[in-house]
Formats: sequence, structure tokens, C-alpha cells
Amino acid sequence: MNKKVLFDLNYGLYIVTAKNEDNFSGCVVNTVTQVTAEDKPKLVVAINKDNYTAELAKKGRKINISVLSKEADMLLIGKFGFRSGRDINKLEGTEYKMGNNGVPIVTQKAVSYIECQVLQIIDCATHDLFLLEMQEGEKIAEEGEPMTYEYYHTVIKGKTPPKASSYNAL
Amino acid sequence: MNKKVLFDLNYGLYIVTAKNEDNFSGCVVNTVTQVTAEDKPKLVVAINKDNYTAELAKKGRKINISVLSKEADMLLIGKFGFRSGRDINKLEGTEYKMGNNGVPIVTQKAVSYIECQVLQIIDCATHDLFLLEMQEGEKIAEEGEPMTYEYYHTVIKGKTPPKASSYNAL
Repeated sequence: MNKKVLFDLNYGLYIVTAKNEDNFSGCVVNTVTQVTAEDKPKLVVAINKDNYTAELAKKGRKINISVLSKEADMLLIGKFGFRSGRDINKLEGTEYKMGNNGVPIVTQKAVSYIECQVLQIIDCATHDLFLLEMQEGEKIAEEGEPMTYEYYHTVIKGKTPPKASSYNAL
Repeated sequence: MNKKVLFDLNYGLYIVTAKNEDNFSGCVVNTVTQVTAEDKPKLVVAINKDNYTAELAKKGRKINISVLSKEADMLLIGKFGFRSGRDINKLEGTEYKMGNNGVPIVTQKAVSYIECQVLQIIDCATHDLFLLEMQEGEKIAEEGEPMTYEYYHTVIKGKTPPKASSYNAL
């Protein structure tokens, strides 16, 4: 079994945010996937169980998704992807707005956002797979293209954090 | 709610195949996502319930994934994405090899493949979400880049089939 073939899968790049009581966190993921378009569209996202965002999403039952643009830089991705919301306030110095569901949405270097309700959580070893229902969604910027995972790796030369779904210390 | 923001999500493009007894089918999806890298990696894929491939995967409990390359053309994508395995034999005129799990793998215009066992099926309205465990996986071609959904839409000018997870007749 050659696990390297998993690097051939393609994704986008996103910041997902969650809140419970006064606690907030957000993290970078590549695992946002639409599963159905009917009625209120449903999506899934996998988040590492160790991430503070996963803990808060389990309690708060809401996840907001920001679709990063190709202009997103390593300063933003580093803050949300390589540091923990348990240690720092990730909203400090970050452009954001409050979602209708009360969870902050990162608007910095993002082309659009989606507000979601958590419908179900499926245990997948290191990760929780959240089944989501879209409640709101709007464009943030009319210009700017969504980041692809391929672009992040090849153009921005970004690394994959050890807690990512696609991590593989080969 | 602006459902158009869902078009900002990014994916790859894949042919997934399934078999039950002597019946085979395969279809094009964009919803293959790795959820964890630990032990045997786990993935999810959403397939429209009406697709013959979903019916066979539910019975056969195995799904093989071919990662399409950017060279995949509309002849191949049309056969697997816009026609039904109930009506035609999709293997006829298609390059493929037999997987170790007995399910044919499309090797035509594909860079790699992954053989999977179905662990769980989650009902998502129009689609079934299959939680998969990777059993095998190898490169098919050392050259060639994996197709992105963005590339499919912008360069190949491919359309989204009505039964896709991301379909939206806006």
C-alpha cells in the first residue's frame, strides 16, 4: 500500500470557526466537502479531535466556514493552522465579522463564508467528521479566486500541519 | 442564503467503481476526501443514491477510486459521469485493471488508485456518504497531474451532472 497516492487527492483550503459560551477558536482545514445540494445543502468537514475548534464545535454545535482566497498568506494560515486557540486569541489582529449564529467568521483573505449547524458527528480515529447543514452563506469579496490545496503546496509552498487529515510522515 | 458560494469550494475529480456479484458500475465524483491518516487511512465519498454505483457499493461494500489526471477528456468523463451503468457496460472500451478486492479499477487517464472497504454509510438526503478504509493504493502513472475541479470547469469547460453533490440549478 503506497500511502503517497493520498497526496494526489485535491481540496480547497478553509478556516473553520467554532464558539462555546465565551470561548472561540478556529483552524485551517482542507476537508470541506458538499454532499448534497437539496433543500438546505449539507456538507462534511473533518477536524482533528485534539484541535480546540473540534472541542468547541462539539459543544456549540455550530461551525462557520471561510473559503480562503489565493491571496491568503502564511501569516494568516500560520496563526490558524499551526497555533492553538487554547494558547492565543486568534481573533486578535484578524479581520472578522459576527455570524448570524453568533460564531465569528474570518473575513480576511476570504472569498466567501458558510454558516452551518452540526447535524451529526462521526468518530474517525484521530478526527471527528462533522455532518453540517448550511444555514447562511454570502460572498465576502467579488474578486479573488478560492485557494486550492494544490496552489497552497506548489505556489505558496505551504506545509501540512501534523494534525491535518492528510498528514503523512512518510 | 446565497447557495452560489458553494461553487467556491474546491475538489479533485475521480471515478469510483463498485461491483456486486457480476454487476459492475462506476461514476464520476468530486467528493473524495481523506479524513485521517492514522493506521489504515480513512476517506469519505458522497455518491448520489440514484446512481447504480451507490446501489452496488451498498451491496458489495467495496469502492475503488481512480484519481483522474488533467488529461482526462470528456469522452471518458461523459461515459462515467453522464450515463448509467444500468444501461451500458462502462468497462467496454475503457482501460482498467482488476483490483485485489475484485472490483475493476479504471486506469485510463488516471494518476493513481485507492482500493477501499466500506465501513459505514451515512444517509444525506439525495446522497449516501460512504466512510471508507484504504486497503491498497498505487500510482498508475508517474507523470501527469491530478485533475482539480477548478481545472475541469475552467480549462476543460466541463459541466456538473444533475446528480452531483454540488449541483445547483440556480
